[in-house]
Amino acid sequence: MSEENAVFVGNKPVMNYVLAVLTLFHNGAEEVSIKARGRAISRAVDVAEIVRTRFLSDTEIKEIKIGTEQLTGRGGGPANVSTIEIVLSKKQ
Amino acid sequence: MSEENAVFVGNKPVMNYVLAVLTLFHNGAEEVSIKARGRAISRAVDVAEIVRTRFLSDTEIKEIKIGTEQLTGRGGGPANVSTIEIVLSKKQ
Repeated sequence: MSEENAVFVGNKPVMNYVLAVLTLFHNGAEEVSIKARGRAISRAVDVAEIVRTRFLSDTEIKEIKIGTEQLTGRGGGPANVSTIEIVLSKKQ
Repeated sequence: MSEENAVFVGNKPVMNYVLAVLTLFHNGAEEVSIKARGRAISRAVDVAEIVRTRFLSDTEIKEIKIGTEQLTGRGGGPANVSTIEIVLSKKQ
């Protein structure tokens, strides 16, 4: 993919992100990355599972990566936050 | 593994689960599964990342699986909940 198809999951209702993923697939994407940090990680998993089980059964989870990012915390010091990236792809 | 080494992550402070994982590795486990459902999924990712980056740099993420479980919801009807399983293993 020259342009990465990614959806960043935040604090909005889960169906907003589900729709964003569906739109990317309907526009021809072969795979879509669902990314989140911190507390939104649970919602990212919900998005992937809802897309895969309820809407697009011809997609599958290709890869899941987790990691840690260092941010500047509220007090100005470093704060670590966990991240996730779930790659959904069309079944071959 | 005949006996699975697993830690179920819930609503307690994250370090409780980190300690549980460290204890399993110190008792000789070659790999430990970190499991969670729903909102605790974010915390499970935190547990895996803290163990791997801060305490046991000789461990790595071997596998991450996500899924959906059907529970009985508050009203008695079915409710879907997302699940995660993160397998940490000693580097070979």
